[in-house]
Amino acid sequence: MNDKKYNKDTSQVQHNEIDELRNESNITHRTTSSSLEKILYKQHKVLDHGFVRVIDYMGDDSAIVQAARVSYGKGTKKVSEDTGLIRYLMRHSHSTPFEMCEIKFHIKLPIFIARQWVRHRTANINEYSARYSILDKEFYIPNSSNLGAQSQSNRQGRDSNLTGDEAAEVLGILKNDALQLYGNYEKMMNIKSTGEKINENNLGLSRELARMNLSLNYYTQWYWKIDLHNLLHFLRLRADKHAQLEIREYADVILKMVEEWVPETYKAFIEYQMQGVKLSSTSWQAVKNLINGSLPSHKDMGISKREWDELNDLINN
Amino acid sequence: MNDKKYNKDTSQVQHNEIDELRNESNITHRTTSSSLEKILYKQHKVLDHGFVRVIDYMGDDSAIVQAARVSYGKGTKKVSEDTGLIRYLMRHSHSTPFEMCEIKFHIKLPIFIARQWVRHRTANINEYSARYSILDKEFYIPNSSNLGAQSQSNRQGRDSNLTGDEAAEVLGILKNDALQLYGNYEKMMNIKSTGEKINENNLGLSRELARMNLSLNYYTQWYWKIDLHNLLHFLRLRADKHAQLEIREYADVILKMVEEWVPETYKAFIEYQMQGVKLSSTSWQAVKNLINGSLPSHKDMGISKREWDELNDLINN
Amino acid sequence: MNDKKYNKDTSQVQHNEIDELRNESNITHRTTSSSLEKILYKQHKVLDHGFVRVIDYMGDDSAIVQAARVSYGKGTKKVSEDTGLIRYLMRHSHSTPFEMCEIKFHIKLPIFIARQWVRHRTANINEYSARYSILDKEFYIPNSSNLGAQSQSNRQGRDSNLTGDEAAEVLGILKNDALQLYGNYEKMMNIKSTGEKINENNLGLSRELARMNLSLNYYTQWYWKIDLHNLLHFLRLRADKHAQLEIREYADVILKMVEEWVPETYKAFIEYQMQGVKLSSTSWQAVKNLINGSLPSHKDMGISKREWDELNDLINN
Amino acid sequence: MNDKKYNKDTSQVQHNEIDELRNESNITHRTTSSSLEKILYKQHKVLDHGFVRVIDYMGDDSAIVQAARVSYGKGTKKVSEDTGLIRYLMRHSHSTPFEMCEIKFHIKLPIFIARQWVRHRTANINEYSARYSILDKEFYIPNSSNLGAQSQSNRQGRDSNLTGDEAAEVLGILKNDALQLYGNYEKMMNIKSTGEKINENNLGLSRELARMNLSLNYYTQWYWKIDLHNLLHFLRLRADKHAQLEIREYADVILKMVEEWVPETYKAFIEYQMQGVKLSSTSWQAVKNLINGSLPSHKDMGISKREWDELNDLINN
Repeated sequence: MNDKKYNKDTSQVQHNEIDELRNESNITHRTTSSSLEKILYKQHKVLDHGFVRVIDYMGDDSAIVQAARVSYGKGTKKVSEDTGLIRYLMRHSHSTPFEMCEIKFHIKLPIFIARQWVRHRTANINEYSARYSILDKEFYIPNSSNLGAQSQSNRQGRDSNLTGDEAAEVLGILKNDALQLYGNYEKMMNIKSTGEKINENNLGLSRELARMNLSLNYYTQWYWKIDLHNLLHFLRLRADKHAQLEIREYADVILKMVEEWVPETYKAFIEYQMQGVKLSSTSWQAVKNLINGSLPSHKDMGISKREWDELNDLINN
Repeated sequence: MNDKKYNKDTSQVQHNEIDELRNESNITHRTTSSSLEKILYKQHKVLDHGFVRVIDYMGDDSAIVQAARVSYGKGTKKVSEDTGLIRYLMRHSHSTPFEMCEIKFHIKLPIFIARQWVRHRTANINEYSARYSILDKEFYIPNSSNLGAQSQSNRQGRDSNLTGDEAAEVLGILKNDALQLYGNYEKMMNIKSTGEKINENNLGLSRELARMNLSLNYYTQWYWKIDLHNLLHFLRLRADKHAQLEIREYADVILKMVEEWVPETYKAFIEYQMQGVKLSSTSWQAVKNLINGSLPSHKDMGISKREWDELNDLINN
Repeated sequence: MNDKKYNKDTSQVQHNEIDELRNESNITHRTTSSSLEKILYKQHKVLDHGFVRVIDYMGDDSAIVQAARVSYGKGTKKVSEDTGLIRYLMRHSHSTPFEMCEIKFHIKLPIFIARQWVRHRTANINEYSARYSILDKEFYIPNSSNLGAQSQSNRQGRDSNLTGDEAAEVLGILKNDALQLYGNYEKMMNIKSTGEKINENNLGLSRELARMNLSLNYYTQWYWKIDLHNLLHFLRLRADKHAQLEIREYADVILKMVEEWVPETYKAFIEYQMQGVKLSSTSWQAVKNLINGSLPSHKDMGISKREWDELNDLINN
Repeated sequence: MNDKKYNKDTSQVQHNEIDELRNESNITHRTTSSSLEKILYKQHKVLDHGFVRVIDYMGDDSAIVQAARVSYGKGTKKVSEDTGLIRYLMRHSHSTPFEMCEIKFHIKLPIFIARQWVRHRTANINEYSARYSILDKEFYIPNSSNLGAQSQSNRQGRDSNLTGDEAAEVLGILKNDALQLYGNYEKMMNIKSTGEKINENNLGLSRELARMNLSLNYYTQWYWKIDLHNLLHFLRLRADKHAQLEIREYADVILKMVEEWVPETYKAFIEYQMQGVKLSSTSWQAVKNLINGSLPSHKDMGISKREWDELNDLINN
């Protein structure tokens, strides 16, 4: 990317590039998902400046069936049999057929979210290099409805939102600090947004150093490619209510794309994993007692109060 | 696969299935390789009963450039610049952009080769299950021109071919043993090639046990999916002269497919990796001495005779 | 290994080597598991000629706690708190702290089992090379109590054992074929068990080719190194009743070693994973109905008969 | 970690914890590296507030030899043979025996360096959680001798250092901004360094959000565990002159630890990889021409000016 005009409004250029890609049509013998083709390359907005775009994909529900059967042709039989096979594979954690589908995204996201994301190691990443190029002047400021206070019960969660003066002060700090940092980023590199030098006599600090003065809510972007099995694993953890809200917003968008791409796999995934239930040996014994009409206590069961509460939450919701 | 007719000549059925796939054409906005489309799904024969077929692919040379530039559109500039970028990435071992392309094969190969192949861990595999289904009556018998004697200089290599009576005896053993084993495989499972029971009173040994009586030259088959970076790593090791000849024949076929798929990457790969040269610090010092007209000996250089000979082989070939 | 005497009874030599290792004691500041030290290097027999030996290990329960807390010192607090943390990590699938322990085994196993084993990709393997060395004359023959017939209900399982003449015939086939193959293996390589040539005029087929005439019940051996998280994943799948009996015998032996090594992790693993229960969204709804006294049918629930039976098995056992 | 006193000088506590670990001695039958034991747990300072500590390790040079030979005992022979084997394995890229050694570090490093580091995926990481705990008030400020200007020739590198007023201004910006951000971090969380609330009426922003206002030069810390093969790969890339200086300082410290731990492997690594030379097919042809006394030009060779210059640099240095 040409950093001479790095801060210009490039959105029109980008939209033109995306339209150009969408206007191109090719003939292929490959498995093709007509639903996914409809949204290919398009930007789906997330948070204030982020997005997710599908750039490419390989396979669909039929490719899973085909690989599971190691077949010469399509490998598919009656729709009901294929659906049954996908459900069976999902139920019994047969992961390798789901690895036979692959998808590639272009994602723009705040750095502190990128740091969580990258911990999913079985994926391919090419990130925009701030050693090489200048980062855009874009940073994440939460909606006032997402300004969660520190949770008192869960040390890594958030509770009800800040309000009034406290919320206003926080939003003010986040904005002012981010703007100040970007100004100093430019000043240290000795470069204006027009691409000109600020001070003709200065050398300008290297980009690889100057970037360290930006804060973790600045946006970065990357190409991210992953197989369907590992993508579902990512979604199970990151579309979960324990995940940080900001990454969950990305996961929710991707989950909808998965539904378009592999609808049968999506349904099985929701049924067995997202909304499925895992119980310990002892909790399951307690459930069986309940079915049989006895009313065990957590002490009877030798289970911690915390696990007991978790179990009762499950039963009563 | 229906094991009732497992030994029937299924090749006609398979060819029909492949033709059916090739007759289907879809419209896609995705990057498409017209050269690879021409061979998609087709069987490329390897050894006596093996094959390689490309089943699906994602990306091409332009996808590498696009990911390296983290671009919104195609990411390509002038052809010469793109070629230069691919060569640069290959020369400096920037592996992640090459991970942005993916390819899926259907491969039939002898089990002893599958055992070497599977050691490349960064790939996805779905193998035909001999717990679940009955293996075909197909085993590898080398050409008489590939019947290498044990190498005397290299403990894990082969030398000149066996000839005459010795060759004939070896071929006879391989054929007879394989046929006998298959007969006993059927006998233990109590199943004829027609799918009928051999002996009405017998239960038949489970498939998961009976298969262990087959020898390592029996063919298996699998779906194998891998990204381009890891595929090139596989090819560098397995298309190399130190690789066992049988796996090299597969690697050579795949190498040609890579040339069709990503021609610029292929050229850079040959230039920098397949035909490139790696020298130790000391060997490089010796080379510099030679350029300067001095004639060092391996003792002067403190290098083993073996490394010295390897270096001279490189210089004189 | 010196192939000149490859078929000699090497067991005494091996026992001496093991004793030598066990007689050596070193002082270390590292975390040390006294229980695991007691069995270090010792062979634990599996099947007829197989074994598992622990060769080295890193960490113990306290290392998991230490990593989860990213602490400077031991990271442990009161035993009860550490136990609670390990249970919490296991319950909520926090896998990375369990990756901080590592173990290395030396394993001897039949090739058809090695082929299942190697599919667990996140592990390090060095296998005995039959390109380089001559394999031992050792092959797996099942106990007559393990000669399962093909299951009629589960295509990849086994049922009750073969008996009488059928069992005897199968055992006879397995033994005779294996012996004949080994004789021909030596004949093709032109080498006696003493290391001498059989026929002075013959060249001898290369080892890399001759090995392919051996059957899949021949034993191989390897060094296998894996972190605790991935080991537990392996055990969950391979100590499961759906796993093939032969690999389960290895998993059961390793499971006991895990109990010695990391007893708190072992207990949590059994509670939450090995004996834990996973239910689909719909099955869990059925369970909640049962608790509330209503008696749903699988049709009411929109669940397949097969899943319904699986659920009732869980409830009634 | 107790966040009530998060900003207290904890260094004395930490030193006591480290001393406690070093004072503990255990008896083990495991392979032990006496050189590495001497530095186990100790902090090796890097940059202004960072460090590297070895926390645990598995194996040494002999474990590589043992695995390569799949041996029952130590597997080592004469020292010269073992050294030769290690050199052979390194020269021919036989990576699996080096995977049989494992090492675990505790590392404190600036976040922008952690972002580069984590791209090495084949490793295990447990990072200090800023969702859960409060980060220390520690940030990286470069030495004035490391304040490189943006390179004009290499877009992702740095040149000569900033000096005089420009250097002073940059250092001022970095310090002031970092201090201001930390003050606002505390203010948003509504917590003093004593652990008390700043404003009794405020809820305090959740930690998972407040952290995003910190800049990328703030320090984080993690446990990092990796096998020797992948560690050497990391070091080859990160101790290289093209790596960013800050990560190179970590790599250089770790390289010295590797020398203590596996001295023969270290020597082979330097000889064949760090100081070894890779040439393209064409460059090697040019070298052969030079040896034979002809003086090719880059045009004769069909090689770019840039590659030609790289080659001449190699020859003349």
